[in-house]
Amino acid sequence: MKKISEPSRKRLVELSQILSAVKDERITSVQLEALTGWSSASIRKDISQLDYAGGVSNGYKVKELNAVICQALGIAQDESDSKARGISHKCCIVGLGKLGAALLENSIFFDTAFSVTAGFDANVNRTEILSASFPLYPASRMNQIIPEEKIEYAILTVSNETAQSMAERLVECGIKGIVNYTSVKLILPKSVAVENVSPVTAMNNLSAKISLG
Amino acid sequence: MKKISEPSRKRLVELSQILSAVKDERITSVQLEALTGWSSASIRKDISQLDYAGGVSNGYKVKELNAVICQALGIAQDESDSKARGISHKCCIVGLGKLGAALLENSIFFDTAFSVTAGFDANVNRTEILSASFPLYPASRMNQIIPEEKIEYAILTVSNETAQSMAERLVECGIKGIVNYTSVKLILPKSVAVENVSPVTAMNNLSAKISLG
Repeated sequence: MKKISEPSRKRLVELSQILSAVKDERITSVQLEALTGWSSASIRKDISQLDYAGGVSNGYKVKELNAVICQALGIAQDESDSKARGISHKCCIVGLGKLGAALLENSIFFDTAFSVTAGFDANVNRTEILSASFPLYPASRMNQIIPEEKIEYAILTVSNETAQSMAERLVECGIKGIVNYTSVKLILPKSVAVENVSPVTAMNNLSAKISLG
Repeated sequence: MKKISEPSRKRLVELSQILSAVKDERITSVQLEALTGWSSASIRKDISQLDYAGGVSNGYKVKELNAVICQALGIAQDESDSKARGISHKCCIVGLGKLGAALLENSIFFDTAFSVTAGFDANVNRTEILSASFPLYPASRMNQIIPEEKIEYAILTVSNETAQSMAERLVECGIKGIVNYTSVKLILPKSVAVENVSPVTAMNNLSAKISLG
């Protein structure tokens, strides 16, 4: 298989989410253009990078294409796919302020390959006041719990002031990837994947997109 | 100026955030590689797309480069830059469940070109129970308030079930861009910009990135 570029990979991740919601048996790249806003040529090019012979004039088989994408990217379509293929990822939430507390409902990862299995906060009061379907710990226990529970990913919802130092501690604990809800651009080893999803970054991206037309 | 590609635009948005935090007067592309994880060649290529003659062997002038990036992308470095250049964007939060309520603090956009000026929820109880430094309205008033207040962007924090229909209503109200915190891939006219920042999309992006190496 060819090397998949970053924008192509991100489009394929979103394409898989779209295909999961499609009810028809087949779909053409032109129909996908209407659903996604990406050009049909770009969609065909993204798909051509996968080892997939299907999909000619009468369109792609929806389920087959979704399975090929998920296989290529190492992601799961839903919980049953995740179980069948042995793909599951434990996550933790770090920072239980208002935003972190809002994400405490495990339903956010309903029917996915992900599950939240721990929450951490530097303030013991927060871990005692809040309740969740998984344990909440003082941040001092991260070094023990994260390796012990084999937690791979962290959702970072601490304050901007403590974001960098907390992210560094997460890396020391063996975390492989961070979903960063803070406005801070984290400086971490290249081996750690980061997705920046703060409202400020998202708004700047929207703004630049609209301004460049 | 050349057309800036989407991945390049997103890197430049993040680069501007990084430069805002750099204290030194000059920075080289090699130093930026260490801060960002992107290759210095890719950083130089991104910057070469801007009309900018600066930055040779002894590095880029940090403030000058940041100003050039912000100018090219139509974004602001901070609040004073936003005021000086007349760039400001009103936003609203749509859906005042736990996540929407957690974003009600206007401090999330502290020192940026963005300000939240309204919140909406289909449930009148939520708009009456919650408090914010800006008014909260029943969703039925979106069609009036959004054009009246010239609100450009929306943060969508409704349930997955109502995400598509609420997004369509926002488009009817004249919203130009949506930061989408739901797991639903919204199907909207191409003229409307969408940034998908749900935990599920972010986790799948992390997963695919790590799996492809």
